[in-house]
Amino acid sequence: MIDLRSDTVTKPTMAMRQAAFEAEVGDDVYEEDPTVKKLEDKAAEMLGKEAALFVTSGTQGNQIAVLTHCNPGDEVLLEANAHLFLYEGASMSALAGVQPRTIQGRRGVMDPEHVKAAIRPDDIHFPETSLICLENTHNKAGGVVVPLENMQAIYELAREEGIPVHLDGARLFNASVATGISLHRYADQTDTVQACLSKGLGAPVGSIIAGSYDFIQKARKWRKRLGGGLRQVGMVAAPAYVALTEMVDRLAENHAHARQLANGLQHVEGLTIEKVETNIVLVHVNGLGETAESFLHKLKEDGILAVPFGPTTVRFVTNYGVGGREIDQVIDRIISSYLY
Amino acid sequence: MIDLRSDTVTKPTMAMRQAAFEAEVGDDVYEEDPTVKKLEDKAAEMLGKEAALFVTSGTQGNQIAVLTHCNPGDEVLLEANAHLFLYEGASMSALAGVQPRTIQGRRGVMDPEHVKAAIRPDDIHFPETSLICLENTHNKAGGVVVPLENMQAIYELAREEGIPVHLDGARLFNASVATGISLHRYADQTDTVQACLSKGLGAPVGSIIAGSYDFIQKARKWRKRLGGGLRQVGMVAAPAYVALTEMVDRLAENHAHARQLANGLQHVEGLTIEKVETNIVLVHVNGLGETAESFLHKLKEDGILAVPFGPTTVRFVTNYGVGGREIDQVIDRIISSYLY
Amino acid sequence: MIDLRSDTVTKPTMAMRQAAFEAEVGDDVYEEDPTVKKLEDKAAEMLGKEAALFVTSGTQGNQIAVLTHCNPGDEVLLEANAHLFLYEGASMSALAGVQPRTIQGRRGVMDPEHVKAAIRPDDIHFPETSLICLENTHNKAGGVVVPLENMQAIYELAREEGIPVHLDGARLFNASVATGISLHRYADQTDTVQACLSKGLGAPVGSIIAGSYDFIQKARKWRKRLGGGLRQVGMVAAPAYVALTEMVDRLAENHAHARQLANGLQHVEGLTIEKVETNIVLVHVNGLGETAESFLHKLKEDGILAVPFGPTTVRFVTNYGVGGREIDQVIDRIISSYLY
Amino acid sequence: MIDLRSDTVTKPTMAMRQAAFEAEVGDDVYEEDPTVKKLEDKAAEMLGKEAALFVTSGTQGNQIAVLTHCNPGDEVLLEANAHLFLYEGASMSALAGVQPRTIQGRRGVMDPEHVKAAIRPDDIHFPETSLICLENTHNKAGGVVVPLENMQAIYELAREEGIPVHLDGARLFNASVATGISLHRYADQTDTVQACLSKGLGAPVGSIIAGSYDFIQKARKWRKRLGGGLRQVGMVAAPAYVALTEMVDRLAENHAHARQLANGLQHVEGLTIEKVETNIVLVHVNGLGETAESFLHKLKEDGILAVPFGPTTVRFVTNYGVGGREIDQVIDRIISSYLY
Repeated sequence: MIDLRSDTVTKPTMAMRQAAFEAEVGDDVYEEDPTVKKLEDKAAEMLGKEAALFVTSGTQGNQIAVLTHCNPGDEVLLEANAHLFLYEGASMSALAGVQPRTIQGRRGVMDPEHVKAAIRPDDIHFPETSLICLENTHNKAGGVVVPLENMQAIYELAREEGIPVHLDGARLFNASVATGISLHRYADQTDTVQACLSKGLGAPVGSIIAGSYDFIQKARKWRKRLGGGLRQVGMVAAPAYVALTEMVDRLAENHAHARQLANGLQHVEGLTIEKVETNIVLVHVNGLGETAESFLHKLKEDGILAVPFGPTTVRFVTNYGVGGREIDQVIDRIISSYLY
Repeated sequence: MIDLRSDTVTKPTMAMRQAAFEAEVGDDVYEEDPTVKKLEDKAAEMLGKEAALFVTSGTQGNQIAVLTHCNPGDEVLLEANAHLFLYEGASMSALAGVQPRTIQGRRGVMDPEHVKAAIRPDDIHFPETSLICLENTHNKAGGVVVPLENMQAIYELAREEGIPVHLDGARLFNASVATGISLHRYADQTDTVQACLSKGLGAPVGSIIAGSYDFIQKARKWRKRLGGGLRQVGMVAAPAYVALTEMVDRLAENHAHARQLANGLQHVEGLTIEKVETNIVLVHVNGLGETAESFLHKLKEDGILAVPFGPTTVRFVTNYGVGGREIDQVIDRIISSYLY
Repeated sequence: MIDLRSDTVTKPTMAMRQAAFEAEVGDDVYEEDPTVKKLEDKAAEMLGKEAALFVTSGTQGNQIAVLTHCNPGDEVLLEANAHLFLYEGASMSALAGVQPRTIQGRRGVMDPEHVKAAIRPDDIHFPETSLICLENTHNKAGGVVVPLENMQAIYELAREEGIPVHLDGARLFNASVATGISLHRYADQTDTVQACLSKGLGAPVGSIIAGSYDFIQKARKWRKRLGGGLRQVGMVAAPAYVALTEMVDRLAENHAHARQLANGLQHVEGLTIEKVETNIVLVHVNGLGETAESFLHKLKEDGILAVPFGPTTVRFVTNYGVGGREIDQVIDRIISSYLY
Repeated sequence: MIDLRSDTVTKPTMAMRQAAFEAEVGDDVYEEDPTVKKLEDKAAEMLGKEAALFVTSGTQGNQIAVLTHCNPGDEVLLEANAHLFLYEGASMSALAGVQPRTIQGRRGVMDPEHVKAAIRPDDIHFPETSLICLENTHNKAGGVVVPLENMQAIYELAREEGIPVHLDGARLFNASVATGISLHRYADQTDTVQACLSKGLGAPVGSIIAGSYDFIQKARKWRKRLGGGLRQVGMVAAPAYVALTEMVDRLAENHAHARQLANGLQHVEGLTIEKVETNIVLVHVNGLGETAESFLHKLKEDGILAVPFGPTTVRFVTNYGVGGREIDQVIDRIISSYLY
């Protein structure tokens, strides 16, 4: 099978397995695991924040950020198709008691004026706007890179209003590789950031959240409450360290493969392909008279996996396990199914 | 002052005061207050539901409905400008741990197809859609009557999906009076309904929620948790009973006054007036070069009160305390300020 | 029926009804109801606090206090049989997300050393102790007056630790009347206090919470979220004002009646009667070979109502509706049932 | 340093590292990781339950159990010194909105009669008792084995009342090894069980929860919400599988070492040593005129680590990293400090 469902399917590399095997460990609940410390220090440095914390998933990182920034009855502003809103089981309401208020962006990018207009004034009827969440790259929009200037504009108005900004950087590494803008500069436009090491970077497990010392201190306690306070976590942190330090540049291959796929499919009549910016290719199949489901069913019979992303939309995510030759195969099979 | 801020400013009538004075009472936590029982029975009958419960406000009624219908981590579908989403302090997330998912309606009316599309399929990433909330009349849209057919269409699809429907009927009486469609027929299109007795109907305090026996049984416990289990509540229920049984038809006057106001203002250049359906008049003042704030400031100097409903939008709500003569005065003062 | 189930069954007086009839009212969500303002000001003054807020029940007042003082994941210290723990539907956990930690008192009175020992040190495993709750008089212990010195000792240690103290004063008026110590001096030993006007004082509905301006400001928003932001609430506040200003001293009668009842029953072999301090009489009936249920069943046949307070314990609460003659009847009937 | 602070400090074995290195992995959010499936199947079999789920910590397992069994406003019965109550950051209230009701046991063992008496009858004031939690071995009581008969008695009454029982088996393996009673028989006395693989068994990370298919299905979603839905988790599950299948019997050594330590210290005047049942030794140091803090400070200077377990109580936990010779050293150093 050629698996393009997600970059989360990426298998760990030999170097990662070796790192896990050799990892120096300790009890991280006592903050004595040297490997996780090394990872957290490195991540904080790369993201330009005072401190960082290793968490077991992007969802855990995002939810800890919400729990740490907000109080129950607050409101969080975020894009209408944000992962935090669509794909995290309503956790921000279930766990933190906060209400999401969504803003319809253009390809995942919110207009700063819309963000500003959505901030609540002081009134007994209103929740307090206590967090703005960004997502970069934006998954649902198709791996779109949110421009740095957009982030700057939002951060500026947020600071004027005294509202913290959190960045869901599940694929921030992809944004950075695609634009050449450093992680640091992106993270400078937010108070806190979550960056995932187990998607394109291939760590078997784990994300990082980063922010001020104070934030990380409080976040550590929420992580414990969620059951994310681990013991000899160095064995998990070691491959994540390899991911963070050795795998970032490699993402450019995935981006090239995504473009290759999009280019290959653009001549198939009936397919509409969204502009590719990173490692995600969104394809609308309604012009073929197919639903996402029927299209994916046929693909699967041809040994290709992708996921539905709407009634007639399909998402392909290029990843470490899929090379240029496999991409060509995918193109060939789709073309042979639909072009003639 | 001519107070058109809201119909919530309505003062109780003499008949209501007299009813409070004479009310037969008991301890309602023991379910022994005959007056509140009489009110609840009457309300259940009028709304065509098995049972009803007296609550201290529309917000309390709505929140109890959410708490009773939903579990934490669920999702509630409702219109983007619903009172439950905009004006209740994010309570549904704070208290019930549920996530609102908003649907942009046209003048407050949701397209059933949009509602259907927003219902979540079964997936580990998704919350369960466990409630659809309607609002009729729709306050933020300007007292718009949501058509019965629209409610029917939504209720039908909701039943197909096994999702309950709750109606925020803070001004359901206005809808019924405006259309001549009985409360009963509106309530037939929902599983539960909240109807407010202290807006246009003039009860000093109180709303009703109605639904099945089971629903009301569970709702009673949530009411207790919110501190709404009261003692000799008959003294509050008695004027509410007067409101429910003697004040409904009178709402037609308010509707006439609202039309009078809109007609009177339509020739003022620079004012745009939304179509009036019940007792709310929305006026956009940007054509005057005013903001809502500056416009309201001048009105106040002229002895007229209304509220901002957006940066350049003002809401007037006609109510029992304001007669046709006062409406003419409002028109005169605005005309004399802006027409010449 | 002679109703000794609770003082909550107290019916409003004619003066209260008259006050409701005549009440000057306004929309209290806009903070424009003069009668509730008068009540809140008077209550704040009597309790020696900066500000007060009218709420619809003792439970609502207590829960708003917890919501205002605490964050989710905090811990609240309170006596093992506190009303807040036993009788409020686990609301403090359901609504505020806080964990109660109970301390076994002696007749409802906590040893300050036990309170001190239960305060959590700083540790990643521990919740933060963010509130200490007292209850005076203590209902479950049998209307016991918690000594002022005990409250002082606890408040002192709480201030050393920077932990606020809240007083559930559902029957604080009874404590004050029984001891001659002013409300003010009791309330001085706490940061916030809830005092109920609808038990022995006879208001049909309502309690007061009092504290600093800041506390009341935040409390007002939580009250709105719980649905306790009311409109022409003056009609409810007016009888509550009568209760607060005219009915307090009268509680002495209830206390005398409680002593009368206890004295009358003390010669009934098989009954054990707890020391009476205010208006509550706890009677253990196991010596009669009865359960609470069987004992109450017989009483009811004799036209007397009381409530179970344990498997073999019965609670009588004297109240405005029951005079000395009725108390004698109760004694006679019990004696005639069991003495011979 | 000789580290007796906890068995959580146990370092993974070479076999575990090798297993991680070689682990076959897949994306477990898609339920495609064969190694975690193998672990879950094996654990379910050993515990005699329909299904099992891998979680990242004992706290996560316990909290997921509470979230899955309970609704907000429910009450959970558990022993006064249960880990779930004392050491999990009030998570059950913060995340699940449930109120713990504690029962004082004797050395961690609750009297079934007390449990029964604490179950709430149906009443508008009361939360619903929706879960009973046991802990075996009981950590705070000193590694005490809760007798199977006690668990049986509690389970029987729970089933009569229709209340599920959850077992916090953070150290259930220790109980089983100490008594020779199989895991299966213990787990038979509960509906769900959490068993930790990263304490004495030495897995670097991870616990198991087990129960019915339905329970595990719902639990999986709550795990996702807490951020415990992981990707190539086989690399973590593989060492946990080694722990589960190869390390259990070895716990007997730890128990022997604990007895060795207790025996060695029993002649030190001023020390009181709790009866040792598994791998925990509780020592009261007040007879030496020491506090836990001062005693531990001196120990640390001698290269020995333990933790405070009360103002004058110290806990030693034997573990894989500490052999019989080290235990003798600990005894020698304490004796030489205090005996002469």
